[in-house]
Amino acid sequence: MAEPSAAGIASVVSAIEPIDACAAARARAELDRKTKPRKSLGRLEDLAVQLAATRRTLDLMPLEAAVVVAAADHGYAAHEVSAYPQAVTRQMLANFAGGGAAVAVLARRARARLVLVDAGVVGGPPEPGIVRLDIARGTADATAGPAMTLAEMNAAVEAGVAATAQLAREGVSVLALGDMGIGNTTAASALCAALLGVDAAAVCGPGTGLDADGVARKAQVVDRALTVSGVDASDPLAALSQVGGLEIAFLTGAILGGARERRALVLDGFVVGAAALVAARLAPRSVEYMVAAHLSPEPGHRLVLADLHLEPLLDLELRLGEGSGAALALPIVSAAAALLVEMATFESAGVHDSGR
Amino acid sequence: MAEPSAAGIASVVSAIEPIDACAAARARAELDRKTKPRKSLGRLEDLAVQLAATRRTLDLMPLEAAVVVAAADHGYAAHEVSAYPQAVTRQMLANFAGGGAAVAVLARRARARLVLVDAGVVGGPPEPGIVRLDIARGTADATAGPAMTLAEMNAAVEAGVAATAQLAREGVSVLALGDMGIGNTTAASALCAALLGVDAAAVCGPGTGLDADGVARKAQVVDRALTVSGVDASDPLAALSQVGGLEIAFLTGAILGGARERRALVLDGFVVGAAALVAARLAPRSVEYMVAAHLSPEPGHRLVLADLHLEPLLDLELRLGEGSGAALALPIVSAAAALLVEMATFESAGVHDSGR
Repeated sequence: MAEPSAAGIASVVSAIEPIDACAAARARAELDRKTKPRKSLGRLEDLAVQLAATRRTLDLMPLEAAVVVAAADHGYAAHEVSAYPQAVTRQMLANFAGGGAAVAVLARRARARLVLVDAGVVGGPPEPGIVRLDIARGTADATAGPAMTLAEMNAAVEAGVAATAQLAREGVSVLALGDMGIGNTTAASALCAALLGVDAAAVCGPGTGLDADGVARKAQVVDRALTVSGVDASDPLAALSQVGGLEIAFLTGAILGGARERRALVLDGFVVGAAALVAARLAPRSVEYMVAAHLSPEPGHRLVLADLHLEPLLDLELRLGEGSGAALALPIVSAAAALLVEMATFESAGVHDSGR
Repeated sequence: MAEPSAAGIASVVSAIEPIDACAAARARAELDRKTKPRKSLGRLEDLAVQLAATRRTLDLMPLEAAVVVAAADHGYAAHEVSAYPQAVTRQMLANFAGGGAAVAVLARRARARLVLVDAGVVGGPPEPGIVRLDIARGTADATAGPAMTLAEMNAAVEAGVAATAQLAREGVSVLALGDMGIGNTTAASALCAALLGVDAAAVCGPGTGLDADGVARKAQVVDRALTVSGVDASDPLAALSQVGGLEIAFLTGAILGGARERRALVLDGFVVGAAALVAARLAPRSVEYMVAAHLSPEPGHRLVLADLHLEPLLDLELRLGEGSGAALALPIVSAAAALLVEMATFESAGVHDSGR
């Protein structure tokens, strides 16, 4: 592996182009010829237009999708910020590979490939069916020093960039992004508090099941990490390395790389949202490629989506992570593309057009 | 065809049983053993429980679905209550059969059968692929007298009951219900105003594209129909026959019949909602079988869902009708079932359970 660097990230950022306004206009005009009142398919029409603009074509079908789930462990876990022990990260990654986890079921339903990345899970040997990054086995405790070195953070981001480039070469048009990591909503909370300039209490929630005392403890842990690191909104990569996580760094790279490759990026919940926030701060144009799959009950997620001006497709009180919300939204994404491609026009179907 | 009667409808109503509380409890317990924090799949878990209770089993897969679209014309169309001429009802029904309409595209995506019913469309010969009811070719003008006779209304309801019984025999577990009919949001508005006891202005919206003047005109038409008919909430079948429509009557029957057959009923937007309201007034238990696919921007739809205590799965500003929202929600419904059936348990996957 070549030594990754902040310069490498900057070159990816600078290679991200805006989505194609011409394809968007053509898609909008084509939708207006379809046998339905203008705009009557609501946000599905906006989504179809975004897909055409992302892919620079109206010829979107078949729309091959992959669900990419990055997992890692967190030094935060030492502070009892999760209802589950750290070993569950590795156990769940194996459950993803075995096909029994929610995201595995949902990816199968959506006929999407499931790509599993061990971005730094503690313990255990490499397992078949899981791409393992050799960067670090989990982050350090961010309340006592940096979670990652800059070199580790760069390597994880670069791995995300490389993974999306590979998937793009293999013909994947839509990347649904998910995460796994005991303690990772704490890392996401710290990142979001730093980048949004809000208090820890505003972004910390129950994650996968903390009670009120647990949430208060989590906010204290986030406060301490922010104080110790001194990070703020001025340097998103510094914040990522000091208080973030390896899977969040990988996902940041996947978002930047996916935008560079002009792929649609279907974001899961709060942790992926934190990665999207870092990516957006580095490359504001990357937001044009993003689709928010759902709104998580985690309080920070609403703030992230508002900051990115993204409207979620679903609001079903999903708070599992894993990419489950992103995988669940994939049929809606492919439905939008299918409507653009497959619907008859007023002319072709011989239906009277009111001209509205 | 045997002569249908109100007694026939009453016998269907009395045959509707509650959904199975025991299967619901078993499904809830099974979901709590799955590899995820308790209730972390939010409303998908509630949906899976409802499906198990509806079908009286946890063995839900494969979950065969049909999208049933009923079309009819309306005497209301003479009052310029739609942006489109009446001929579009027939043209769109042909477009459904031809596969080019939104609902046809979405049913294909969801791998659901598309069942098309001409419940009383004006003009044209019977067409292949469309079940045609020989009751009436459209309703009369409800501002001048009853839209249907009681015999016509009963026949349309009974046809809906018979259609779902047939689909149930053929193994369909989920019925997604849709509608087509120029002027039918006016019929739905009149029905909802009568059954909810609200003003016409509270339920009338732009439908498929009226401007503000058009909406005001529509509310006047609804007011006139309500005044002429004198219907109110006390007699839902009288309201259905006096101010409703043939496809709404068919859909009412499909809902009652579907509930009797213990099928899940995925409701599209406002017009199907009006049929659901009639069904709920006749058979309150039928609501237990209903799933609200989406929230339409049509103002009456929110009132209907609130009255039925149904939370929509989607809110994507769809206002097309046709069953498009119901078909779009089908992958979410089948995902819920797949999660219940296919997810690993903590025990089977060897994942540590925090016991929450």
